[in-house]
Amino acid sequence: MNDPTGRSAGPSAEKETNRLEAFSDGVMAVIITIMVLELRTPAGTTFDDLRQRLPALLIYVLSFTFVGIYWNNHHHLLRATTRISGAVMWTNLHLLFWLSLVPVVTEWVGQSSGAGAPAATYSIVALCDALAYTLLTWAIVRTEGRGSRVAAALGSDLKGRLSILVYVVATPLAFVSPYLTYGLLVAVALMWFVPDRRLAS
Amino acid sequence: MNDPTGRSAGPSAEKETNRLEAFSDGVMAVIITIMVLELRTPAGTTFDDLRQRLPALLIYVLSFTFVGIYWNNHHHLLRATTRISGAVMWTNLHLLFWLSLVPVVTEWVGQSSGAGAPAATYSIVALCDALAYTLLTWAIVRTEGRGSRVAAALGSDLKGRLSILVYVVATPLAFVSPYLTYGLLVAVALMWFVPDRRLAS
Amino acid sequence: MNDPTGRSAGPSAEKETNRLEAFSDGVMAVIITIMVLELRTPAGTTFDDLRQRLPALLIYVLSFTFVGIYWNNHHHLLRATTRISGAVMWTNLHLLFWLSLVPVVTEWVGQSSGAGAPAATYSIVALCDALAYTLLTWAIVRTEGRGSRVAAALGSDLKGRLSILVYVVATPLAFVSPYLTYGLLVAVALMWFVPDRRLAS
Amino acid sequence: MNDPTGRSAGPSAEKETNRLEAFSDGVMAVIITIMVLELRTPAGTTFDDLRQRLPALLIYVLSFTFVGIYWNNHHHLLRATTRISGAVMWTNLHLLFWLSLVPVVTEWVGQSSGAGAPAATYSIVALCDALAYTLLTWAIVRTEGRGSRVAAALGSDLKGRLSILVYVVATPLAFVSPYLTYGLLVAVALMWFVPDRRLAS
Repeated sequence: MNDPTGRSAGPSAEKETNRLEAFSDGVMAVIITIMVLELRTPAGTTFDDLRQRLPALLIYVLSFTFVGIYWNNHHHLLRATTRISGAVMWTNLHLLFWLSLVPVVTEWVGQSSGAGAPAATYSIVALCDALAYTLLTWAIVRTEGRGSRVAAALGSDLKGRLSILVYVVATPLAFVSPYLTYGLLVAVALMWFVPDRRLAS
Repeated sequence: MNDPTGRSAGPSAEKETNRLEAFSDGVMAVIITIMVLELRTPAGTTFDDLRQRLPALLIYVLSFTFVGIYWNNHHHLLRATTRISGAVMWTNLHLLFWLSLVPVVTEWVGQSSGAGAPAATYSIVALCDALAYTLLTWAIVRTEGRGSRVAAALGSDLKGRLSILVYVVATPLAFVSPYLTYGLLVAVALMWFVPDRRLAS
Repeated sequence: MNDPTGRSAGPSAEKETNRLEAFSDGVMAVIITIMVLELRTPAGTTFDDLRQRLPALLIYVLSFTFVGIYWNNHHHLLRATTRISGAVMWTNLHLLFWLSLVPVVTEWVGQSSGAGAPAATYSIVALCDALAYTLLTWAIVRTEGRGSRVAAALGSDLKGRLSILVYVVATPLAFVSPYLTYGLLVAVALMWFVPDRRLAS
Repeated sequence: MNDPTGRSAGPSAEKETNRLEAFSDGVMAVIITIMVLELRTPAGTTFDDLRQRLPALLIYVLSFTFVGIYWNNHHHLLRATTRISGAVMWTNLHLLFWLSLVPVVTEWVGQSSGAGAPAATYSIVALCDALAYTLLTWAIVRTEGRGSRVAAALGSDLKGRLSILVYVVATPLAFVSPYLTYGLLVAVALMWFVPDRRLAS
């Protein structure tokens, strides 16, 4: 697998890719699910009590979608990947680290959605996730080679660059109004909602 | 895989189905298990203290069965599926979202099983789960084609339609008595307990 | 797969077994791991504070071993299984339900290890786990046939019967002394610690 | 599989290895992710409140890296393994037990990073993890044989021995200053950060 000259990937390399997928899927499945543990039950037993949990629920929807998008893109990315190097292994773990911070910032925003610092922190975590994903694609392209299928599929990665730019802008705007930040994050999510067709074909 | 003309599914499509199954299984395994974290230990050390946890335990049994039924039906559904489109991917994630709300409504009902709003909310989440599952089957039939094995197997989906109807009726009844709602939800669970033979053969 | 006449299992049946294994593994992996969430951190920052968590830690060790034994036996059982019927599916889910109660009774015992009711409840859950496992083996033997490899391997299931007997005895003894109950449960665990050689060969 | 004379591993043995990998991956994926549940949200809504969570975040980074290193090394170790004996099964479960204690000691250190006992306990758990991993490699080498690929690859296991030595030294140093302990643990992590090339080739 680490043969630096060979490009072709045998069954052993496929097993390697499968296990990286399986571990990443496991971590992302736990991340996406434990966020619901942060959703507190309403304090009383009426719909009014439920309504007070609405901001927390809405940010949960955004975070669930956010992690779902990463799972989906990660899925297509690894499908186009044929070899796993040490750099791919570690940049993948690095991505999982930043994704693992999503539940705790989701909870913070859910408790105080009107404040600036939580919204800015949420946006910074989203930025770090996007940067970590970009780093992973670089490691994969370096392993697979510039002429590989995955390199061609990623192309100029316009959506990825645009996301990073929006996160950079959205972070300081949280101190003007956190709702500006949330609006921009929702816009990015909608943009990604269409699966990454570059790799899907 | 996304070749719009081909119907036949090669090994790559099978791998694709497998990974969607694996991620969904992971999420459902976490959902079904973290519900137990919502079960508080009894306040004291006697069987009387344990007995006060009985309503929470009973609703846990219902929710466990509920998610188990979805896992089982989802399992048979994907076994009959040969191709994964973007729409299947996203409707599947949408189903997982609604299933992920089961633990928090279970906890709410467990804390206040005699009140109307928690029971109605539980029923609404069950309704959204059923609608999301129906949406997923539509996306699969659209991808596989009307003449496919999965389309024939689903047929008129009588059980699915009946479940949705019962949930619609059970929701407002929670304000007459929440126990009416629970009774209807148990009845639906019993109806589904028999695995979906349409797809099992 | 559900062909009632055929005994041989093709690749489709193997995939079926694999997915049941994967889901069960997922649930057991979460059960065995979330138990650690029930371990509270020591109240202060000294070893004395840590020592007060010792009963909770010891019962965690027992429960971890307990679930580990089930995972190991379940693993060997399904390896010897070639076909999954509806009854196998549901008795397997039923086993997972009783195993899912282990974390909450572990927490209860950890908080009040000297009291009778928690120890008795722990023993009752262990009993239900053992009965559910026996039910699963029956469903598998019925599906595979009396002359199958798995039926021969299970034989008279002496260890299983003995475990059930000990749990029945250990439960009321909790009201004489809970430490009698714990002692018997540890003895059963030690007996099972040797993997189920009947199915391993 | 347990044939004591045969060295070659057929498809059944590979399936066996795969399932051990899958269960271990599941447990490690949950361990690495639930640690984030121990990260409390900041008490207020400002960056100052966030800053007070910094020690907890830093120890979370260390623990995440720590478990990630084990996952990575375990991954390479099992890839070089062709047969699973009972001893491998149990020493693997034993390793998972010690890894499962990482979240709770992480939380304890996060709450009181300046105290000696939490730092020493963290170091002891790290030591037990390292010893359990060594035990697992011994069980594998015994099963595979001294002349096997995995035995040659492990060689004298210099890094493993050095880690154990550092943990032994770092534990009592916590009572001089816990930051000495943390510094040594970070140094060990950095040493392991480079994947285990012995098994990667």
